Amino acid sequence: MSDQRLRILLRRRPTGAPVLDDFQFDRTALPEPCTGEVRVRTLWLSLDPYMRGRMNDAPSYAPPVALGDVMTGEVVGRIDASRAPDLPEGTLVRAPVGWQSHAVLPATAVPPLDPLGLPPQLFLGVLGMPGLTAYAGVLELGRPKNGETLVVAAATGPVGSLAGQLAKRYGLRTVGIAGGPDKATLLTDLFGFDLGLDHRAPDLADRLRAACPDGVDIYVELVGGTVFAAVRPLLNTHARVPVIGTIAHYNTAATQDGPDRLPLFMREILTKRLAVQGLIVWDYAHLHERFLSEIVPLVRNQEINYLEDVIDGLDEAPRAFIGLLEGRNRGKLVVRVAED
Amino acid sequence: MSDQRLRILLRRRPTGAPVLDDFQFDRTALPEPCTGEVRVRTLWLSLDPYMRGRMNDAPSYAPPVALGDVMTGEVVGRIDASRAPDLPEGTLVRAPVGWQSHAVLPATAVPPLDPLGLPPQLFLGVLGMPGLTAYAGVLELGRPKNGETLVVAAATGPVGSLAGQLAKRYGLRTVGIAGGPDKATLLTDLFGFDLGLDHRAPDLADRLRAACPDGVDIYVELVGGTVFAAVRPLLNTHARVPVIGTIAHYNTAATQDGPDRLPLFMREILTKRLAVQGLIVWDYAHLHERFLSEIVPLVRNQEINYLEDVIDGLDEAPRAFIGLLEGRNRGKLVVRVAED
Repeated sequence: MSDQRLRILLRRRPTGAPVLDDFQFDRTALPEPCTGEVRVRTLWLSLDPYMRGRMNDAPSYAPPVALGDVMTGEVVGRIDASRAPDLPEGTLVRAPVGWQSHAVLPATAVPPLDPLGLPPQLFLGVLGMPGLTAYAGVLELGRPKNGETLVVAAATGPVGSLAGQLAKRYGLRTVGIAGGPDKATLLTDLFGFDLGLDHRAPDLADRLRAACPDGVDIYVELVGGTVFAAVRPLLNTHARVPVIGTIAHYNTAATQDGPDRLPLFMREILTKRLAVQGLIVWDYAHLHERFLSEIVPLVRNQEINYLEDVIDGLDEAPRAFIGLLEGRNRGKLVVRVAED
Repeated sequence: MSDQRLRILLRRRPTGAPVLDDFQFDRTALPEPCTGEVRVRTLWLSLDPYMRGRMNDAPSYAPPVALGDVMTGEVVGRIDASRAPDLPEGTLVRAPVGWQSHAVLPATAVPPLDPLGLPPQLFLGVLGMPGLTAYAGVLELGRPKNGETLVVAAATGPVGSLAGQLAKRYGLRTVGIAGGPDKATLLTDLFGFDLGLDHRAPDLADRLRAACPDGVDIYVELVGGTVFAAVRPLLNTHARVPVIGTIAHYNTAATQDGPDRLPLFMREILTKRLAVQGLIVWDYAHLHERFLSEIVPLVRNQEINYLEDVIDGLDEAPRAFIGLLEGRNRGKLVVRVAED
């Protein structure tokens, strides 16, 4: 075990897709906790698309990462130095440590994690924020009804794959979309989607139309771009569109060449009485206990499946994150920062 | 009283703004009811922006008017010939007669109207479909909370004016927008908006920002266009946007020159967790009784005000309707087709 701390800092703000030079590695001595603080040693770092937004100096739902600051993110770690009696050394925790090997935090910011006999990094994925996001999106905003059709893209990822599996349990026809034939196969074989479509193959709009003979009642928006354009004409009257991410646009400027589709979409919202609603997981903390009590047993029994992309070593995080935004991952992307 | 029937037909589909030649006048003998039917003599015809959509041969929430058919619309009338025992001659009714002086309809399509001692044409406006639209938009989709801010345009019209007055009763700050200084004055003086803005004066976006120091929590979308563009940056986190109309676009093509603002708006829906939801009044029939029981007493006591633009004579309907789409009306536009 190293006695140094490795941190990955935001060196400059990307224009478009991030590149390795936007990040900076920084090694310092290990920080020591003061009274009421603990030091967390990172075991697993979660990499998620939302982090791209934090690299921009633009107003959003969370403040940007300052230049020279450590990239934000959630980790599973262990307390390796403690000045807080409730969190002794060795305690497994979930904490907002960011892209670094160790961090000193107030004990109040570090909830202990009982992994319930499961791999602890699942609490960064199917049992963590992405999972709760899917749960709230499908159940609270989606209001699924037996016999309806749900479409979701990025559907081998942690949000999309759980959204599809939850909808299936509620009796919906589920159509997943992902990039590449191997992922499309995973959609049906691992996650039980009724159909899996490869958005990189030609004629997505036609194939999606054929896959949804009764239209689309719930579209879980994670990606935007060509997928959203293909789904829009298929939305049924009273369809629900939980808006959870728009990853296709994260690396591009906010406004794009015309035509301007916004007036037409507003008209569609009216005539089809669509419910289009944004979702950020922290608004749904009140569902967390119910979510875990429902989903943990299903994961344990393999009635809910998940897929992980494990990257070894914190110094690989920038490269893995760049790949995530390019759609190179298949499942939940986690970095194994240290052995337990 | 004439013994002829005057009908106004759709002669051709407008491209852009309708013109008088798009309509055709047709005089025929009075039709006679068969068993189970009644003949309605129109007293008041309602003219509403949604009728512009029915002139297009495009899929929407209701089928288009066929070429050569009578323009659709709701009227208040009296039965002047009856072959239905439950609806004797002289009964006051509300009926989907359209732009014509008389129509024969199945008795089941013609609900009797008790005007409760009020002018019966109010049941085409503040107490009719526009009123119920405002009621459902503000209360069901708007979910108003004391101290919040509501913005609505076309705000001297029957939907906007009731939306503002309802919101005010719930303790909201209300900002109305209308075209021209006289209408802006009516907003505060007649309808009790906290502020009335003229959207034809320069710098709407700046004036709206100044009028909404705490942002916008409910935006009742009736118009689209520059008003929507001015409101969007002011929408607060968790704002609600009931989408009821987009009158600024009714006369224009559906897609417009760029930039394409749709990706940015989807991003805003996400980051601000907006709830953008379409509303068509017939989804809210279950609220009709509650709506009347609440609003009729308020109208009677002049705690809720309304404004009517009365046009005399059915042959003036096309001209009045064209003016409605140009924003020339102030209040609810009704045509007095015949004296009672």
